[in-house]
Amino acid sequence: MTKWVYGFGNGMAEGRADMKNLLGGKGANLAEMSNLGINVPAGFTITTEVCTWYYENGRSYPDDLKGQVLAALAEVEALMNMTFGDGQNPLLVSVRSGARASMPGMMDTVLNLGLNDTTVQGLMERSGDARFAYDSYRRFIQMYSNVVLGIESWNFEEILDEVKDDRGYSLDTELTAEDWKGVVARYKEVVIREQGKPFPEDPHEQLWGAIGAVFGSWMNQRAITYRRLNNIPADWGTAVNVQAMVFGNMGDDCATGVCFSRDPSTGENVFYGEYLVNAQGEDVVAGIRTPQQITIAGKEKNHSTLPAMEEVMPALYQDLVRVRDILENHYRDMQDMEFTIQGGKLWMLQTRNGKRTTAAALRIAVEMAGEGLITRDEAVMRVEPESLDQLLHPSLDPAAERIVLSRGLPASPGAASGRIVFTAGVAEDWARNGEKVILCRTETSPEDIGGMHVAQGILTTRGGMTSHAAVVARGMGTPCVAGAGEFQVDEHAKTLKIRDVVLHEGDIITLDGATGQVMQGSVPTIQPELTGDFATLMGWADERRTMMVRANAETPDDASAARRFGAQGIGLCRTEHMFFDPRRIIAMRRMILADDEAGRREALDSLLPYQRKDFIDLFTVMHGLPVTIRLLDPPLHEFLPHTEGEIAEVAQVAGVSGKDVRERTQKLVESNPMLGHRGCRLGVSYPEIYEMQARAIFEAAVEVARETGVAPLPEVMIPLVSTPREFELMKDVVDRTAKAVFEEAGLAVEYMVGTMIELPRAALRAGDIAASAAFFSFGTNDLTQTTLGLSRDDAGSFLQTYQDKGIFARDPFASLDVDGVGELVQIGVERGRATRPDIKLGICGEHGGDPASIRFCQKIGLSYVSCSPYRVPIARLAAAQAALQSGA
Amino acid sequence: MTKWVYGFGNGMAEGRADMKNLLGGKGANLAEMSNLGINVPAGFTITTEVCTWYYENGRSYPDDLKGQVLAALAEVEALMNMTFGDGQNPLLVSVRSGARASMPGMMDTVLNLGLNDTTVQGLMERSGDARFAYDSYRRFIQMYSNVVLGIESWNFEEILDEVKDDRGYSLDTELTAEDWKGVVARYKEVVIREQGKPFPEDPHEQLWGAIGAVFGSWMNQRAITYRRLNNIPADWGTAVNVQAMVFGNMGDDCATGVCFSRDPSTGENVFYGEYLVNAQGEDVVAGIRTPQQITIAGKEKNHSTLPAMEEVMPALYQDLVRVRDILENHYRDMQDMEFTIQGGKLWMLQTRNGKRTTAAALRIAVEMAGEGLITRDEAVMRVEPESLDQLLHPSLDPAAERIVLSRGLPASPGAASGRIVFTAGVAEDWARNGEKVILCRTETSPEDIGGMHVAQGILTTRGGMTSHAAVVARGMGTPCVAGAGEFQVDEHAKTLKIRDVVLHEGDIITLDGATGQVMQGSVPTIQPELTGDFATLMGWADERRTMMVRANAETPDDASAARRFGAQGIGLCRTEHMFFDPRRIIAMRRMILADDEAGRREALDSLLPYQRKDFIDLFTVMHGLPVTIRLLDPPLHEFLPHTEGEIAEVAQVAGVSGKDVRERTQKLVESNPMLGHRGCRLGVSYPEIYEMQARAIFEAAVEVARETGVAPLPEVMIPLVSTPREFELMKDVVDRTAKAVFEEAGLAVEYMVGTMIELPRAALRAGDIAASAAFFSFGTNDLTQTTLGLSRDDAGSFLQTYQDKGIFARDPFASLDVDGVGELVQIGVERGRATRPDIKLGICGEHGGDPASIRFCQKIGLSYVSCSPYRVPIARLAAAQAALQSGA
Repeated sequence: MTKWVYGFGNGMAEGRADMKNLLGGKGANLAEMSNLGINVPAGFTITTEVCTWYYENGRSYPDDLKGQVLAALAEVEALMNMTFGDGQNPLLVSVRSGARASMPGMMDTVLNLGLNDTTVQGLMERSGDARFAYDSYRRFIQMYSNVVLGIESWNFEEILDEVKDDRGYSLDTELTAEDWKGVVARYKEVVIREQGKPFPEDPHEQLWGAIGAVFGSWMNQRAITYRRLNNIPADWGTAVNVQAMVFGNMGDDCATGVCFSRDPSTGENVFYGEYLVNAQGEDVVAGIRTPQQITIAGKEKNHSTLPAMEEVMPALYQDLVRVRDILENHYRDMQDMEFTIQGGKLWMLQTRNGKRTTAAALRIAVEMAGEGLITRDEAVMRVEPESLDQLLHPSLDPAAERIVLSRGLPASPGAASGRIVFTAGVAEDWARNGEKVILCRTETSPEDIGGMHVAQGILTTRGGMTSHAAVVARGMGTPCVAGAGEFQVDEHAKTLKIRDVVLHEGDIITLDGATGQVMQGSVPTIQPELTGDFATLMGWADERRTMMVRANAETPDDASAARRFGAQGIGLCRTEHMFFDPRRIIAMRRMILADDEAGRREALDSLLPYQRKDFIDLFTVMHGLPVTIRLLDPPLHEFLPHTEGEIAEVAQVAGVSGKDVRERTQKLVESNPMLGHRGCRLGVSYPEIYEMQARAIFEAAVEVARETGVAPLPEVMIPLVSTPREFELMKDVVDRTAKAVFEEAGLAVEYMVGTMIELPRAALRAGDIAASAAFFSFGTNDLTQTTLGLSRDDAGSFLQTYQDKGIFARDPFASLDVDGVGELVQIGVERGRATRPDIKLGICGEHGGDPASIRFCQKIGLSYVSCSPYRVPIARLAAAQAALQSGA
Repeated sequence: MTKWVYGFGNGMAEGRADMKNLLGGKGANLAEMSNLGINVPAGFTITTEVCTWYYENGRSYPDDLKGQVLAALAEVEALMNMTFGDGQNPLLVSVRSGARASMPGMMDTVLNLGLNDTTVQGLMERSGDARFAYDSYRRFIQMYSNVVLGIESWNFEEILDEVKDDRGYSLDTELTAEDWKGVVARYKEVVIREQGKPFPEDPHEQLWGAIGAVFGSWMNQRAITYRRLNNIPADWGTAVNVQAMVFGNMGDDCATGVCFSRDPSTGENVFYGEYLVNAQGEDVVAGIRTPQQITIAGKEKNHSTLPAMEEVMPALYQDLVRVRDILENHYRDMQDMEFTIQGGKLWMLQTRNGKRTTAAALRIAVEMAGEGLITRDEAVMRVEPESLDQLLHPSLDPAAERIVLSRGLPASPGAASGRIVFTAGVAEDWARNGEKVILCRTETSPEDIGGMHVAQGILTTRGGMTSHAAVVARGMGTPCVAGAGEFQVDEHAKTLKIRDVVLHEGDIITLDGATGQVMQGSVPTIQPELTGDFATLMGWADERRTMMVRANAETPDDASAARRFGAQGIGLCRTEHMFFDPRRIIAMRRMILADDEAGRREALDSLLPYQRKDFIDLFTVMHGLPVTIRLLDPPLHEFLPHTEGEIAEVAQVAGVSGKDVRERTQKLVESNPMLGHRGCRLGVSYPEIYEMQARAIFEAAVEVARETGVAPLPEVMIPLVSTPREFELMKDVVDRTAKAVFEEAGLAVEYMVGTMIELPRAALRAGDIAASAAFFSFGTNDLTQTTLGLSRDDAGSFLQTYQDKGIFARDPFASLDVDGVGELVQIGVERGRATRPDIKLGICGEHGGDPASIRFCQKIGLSYVSCSPYRVPIARLAAAQAALQSGA
């Protein structure tokens, strides 16, 4: 016989905390508390297996369930010394869902079950409070009718409003017992009207109705959507908890409250919580009455004039402190607890690990490890890596007022205020004059890089989480709200419009890149603090980590930030942004417009000193740490002039006509530049470009080695390779250049030549490519685009629909698509290693900073992940957790 | 001891025809002829293994090679009764390369080797012709100096020119023996001047020099490039053939000729060939003297006044006929033979399977099978499928004069003449007036479809073999030359410029889509003939074929052509072109511009009748054969208006402002439309579009079933799927619509819902997708684009470089990239079948008509291939060959 029902109460229980899969989170913790001798209202849990049975058998129950429920109910009656349906001493119960994973508010609950015209009398007698009894009764009817019978709530609220109008009341609390009794009668009429039969008076019929409703709510649309979004399998099912009701609102020896074993906002090891005398649980939460502090210390800290529970009910307070100590020691984590005091007796209704701020999470983890309550490894596992992001950027002062205009995508975290400007040029001009600016554009392009660098924040109205603006902003640690489509940017009129609001150049706005909010005016911010608990925990994490963490950085500023955040090298230095500097772009354009190799070489020669300087600076900052430099990648037309002025300038410098420039520009336009003449295809067509870059790298390396005595470790990366031969041809250019430079200089440095694996074909042919490539860096941005056939610049228009319809659980550009892209990465790793067992393997896409993706990288054995400088701490912690989880 | 040298001559040989890998093609066939008792000049072959050894050992030879060569040379001396280096009766030899695969002209040859100041006397005496002897000697010095010593030919030609000037000669033939003797002396001075030492007089030194040069030429740049382009591995190596010289130019009892065992241009079973008395082999080829026919019949047919060999040398002619019979019977294929007659004796110098026209190939194959010389299966294998293309389209009259302006890519075969027009609209207007037009555009887009349909030919100046113009033209069987970049199209000036030539609207040009040539004026064409040998051979092919062949077709015309060519269904009916009709495009644009679903549905309702009519027509033509219909695929902005006139028209019909239309259009522009909001992503966002299309399909199917009594077999295909859920959502739309239509009609038809596998992720997740998809059609065009990260519209600018540098052996859009894309197809097949063993599997990319790709499809077990109607016969033959090769 299958055991479908698990009872608990009176210091015993048939379940345990580790039976969450069977009993759900709530049921398992209730059982655990009871086992620990903590006072919980007796009750029983109907298992998740019944839910599965229910759906597999056309919404029916196993035959033997009824008997088990009746037996468990009898046990509850015995333990509580009350009888279900009894006119004198009625047992009332709550019926609640309780899934394996928390699904707050998604499923149904029924309270006060067991009330009818008879038992309400018993409740009245027991409580000595007719008003309380009838109020409870009418609440039950409304809730049950809504949840079980499907009668909409407005039917009942309408009646209550009428009664209040009739009587001239403004608050529910003004209704008398008689009033409520009248309301009950009218509620029952609604039920007859709506369902054609009376409200069920039989408590057992009520009970089975409520159980069915809770199981049924597992498949309501809200729950289905929630599960899809949170990756919770439908076959987990929910448990149903039936538990004796206790009342915190049955007089002044009653109370109800919520408390935390430590302060959830600071993490300080002090008991923290709020309570209300003669009140129900929802009153504490709803904010109708001002809750009182549990402790005297809390009361003082909050400058409260209301008495603390420690003063009002000192004995019960001591009971609660004892429970707090037992539970925190038992669960070895900060607990979030709910309690009710009925007739001077403390009942615990719930305990669970408490939610906390990131600062609190760090402090709790570090202090609990210090107290010996948990190990350092456990401490490392206790902090959500993603949550560190809050600490690494300025954030909005939570206390400050804010006028939110709209919301876009939270593309790069941090908060910033500044004056609106609409072009990169104006941004640079204003910044030079000491103005703080927010660059507002429809979308950004590499030409905007100068303006983006000086801006406090970036706002775009188009593009997604991996649009140019978003990627660049994250790299620079600049707050960015992207794709805020409600705004209209008019570059010519210099206005930013949203509905009736028109902002002009120079007006101040504030961006919150962590939430995507855009606010009018200036909102005060708070600066980050990276020492103390943060530093301690990161130290413990680094001890456990097996993967290296590098940063994607291309300027000395970015590189310095990366080192400050603990990066162990540069995993991706893009070289294209370096060419947008006004002094360089002209030479770059001459190179592109040249008719032949000689013309290109001439222009490249004038770029060489700049490029060499770039690398000297970068190598100097990185001081011997490895630096992966990707040779020129984007299609050449990205560098070409657009405005007539630019065209004329280029034409003059290149000694050709404006018409020639326009024609050449037109010729370079591509239908799908992402799949066009870019990456190593440029190097194959014009090897002299890569030759110049290689020369700049090696000349810089030799110079820095000589000046500092520490040799840089350049790793030259050939982009967009899909065949071994492309790689070999380009490696040959690099090797020949290195040889020439080292001979000229009379000094050689170590270096590697490798490739990005960013095309499906490259992953499939990784075995061949590894024959000559010393390292692979998985470029999962492009690999995602090609594997899914999805342009990150264009996906914005339907990505939300795709997530809403459950096609993508997460944005595949934010978190690696393990089943698709991941398989190709794994194939690349396996085949690359088969050919070259010591091949260096890393990832440098946006995914390198995503904890779930980092877990995957650990699993397949990458050597390092590389991410934006500002995500380095997140990656360090995530990598440590991944290592611990994998048992490394 | 390894045998490095294989001798032949006098009716015996150590080698055989099947030893090509070891002896090369030439050496193996010389040995075979000798074994067959045919008179070949004695000689020996140094094996390809020596070549491999040579390169693996720093260009040196195995120790025992010298002894084997000397022994073989002694054998040749004995058989030919002459002595190498002898002053009286010198043996002269030729030294030639001979690889496993033919590499015509890529490697080096030395003739007349063994001549020096002594042996030239012997040659003079033996031939009784001093002029011949010294002419041979100077030829040898020039050839040897060039090939072996690396002295450039102009050094020698300069001297010859000086001598002719001095003497007042205009032709080489005017030089006397004394003149040639003087030339020889001066040639030797050149050698001393250029290499600082005299020309080698020792015949053995000459021999080893020549052998080394031939082996060395295996690695010359020309040969390396040729091998790369023809996929010949470098480690095959070449053999070296050293063979006694015979001379066809030693008097009037000497001759030389080339002959074919059947007529290589018609295939007729008649002996065919040309010869010259007292001449060398190159004279026949060079066209200095007019060659004479071998047979009297040939002489009459060619209206030649010169006597045939059959008349002049009747006995030797009979010898040659005997050789022809022996060789054709032995090789069981039409032979291409070279012979020399020296002093009244016939020597065979070469035999190989002869090249032939497609018509000849068909006739020879069918007739040889009729004669019992080969089996029908062998006949099927004898015809190159690709070559059938010549027969399926009109072709230029080879006899006609042509003024070639330029050459583009041979994008769609066939020849056509017509008047130049620059817009699709003008093409349609002029065609309506009975003009034949050639549509000339920079590139075409779906909007040009009407003009493309009525044009005789299409010329574009941009885009590659799989550009829009090329794909559509091939589909329609319209000749197309694409990417003819030398031309400049000026749509406004209505001119087509190339260098100094300016053509205007209305001027006539001719395109040859088979070669890519563009000609001025009209060039006469020849129409195709699809009966006779063609029909016979195709019948045999169809008996052997195991894969079905379908066509990609979307109009009744295309479908009829497809059926005429033997298509067994439609593998890809694209539905987007159907919307460009002027009556429909307005409704389509209204649909796209609609603000909400209601607006879209209204516009779709007006499209439904058109779409239904499309399918009624198509189903009627296909008469019960399966028709795979792909639901709307391209990004919506492709349908949007461009000109102000069009914008105004749409704005008026849709009841919005022109500004609204422009804004909406702007909003739909994508950076990479290939990876954008297209395919099933449209269906997910706007299910009502697919619903309308499904309704049109099923209403048409029901109507055709009722009218004709034969139910159509619609296979509804969801494009661009990458996750199972996308497919399920769209299948649900189709199934619900089918159910509704069938209920309304009171009649149901069978149908299937499947998907295109055209993204790497779809191939990887094929197992999941197959759970609900009844068929897969591999869309290898898009799969190639995404797997290689290569846009077919943009690849034109570097694809040629990629082929030149050996990165791609073939255009991956023309022939499936088996190692990359192929692996994904195979993964898709395996995983799809694992889930659904009876899943229907086909391919509908351009590769469906490429023989090499068809072989791959056979290997991995696809059910069918689908290609342009005009490639259906090619695919049928290729599929038959693939089946025969696989032993199916």
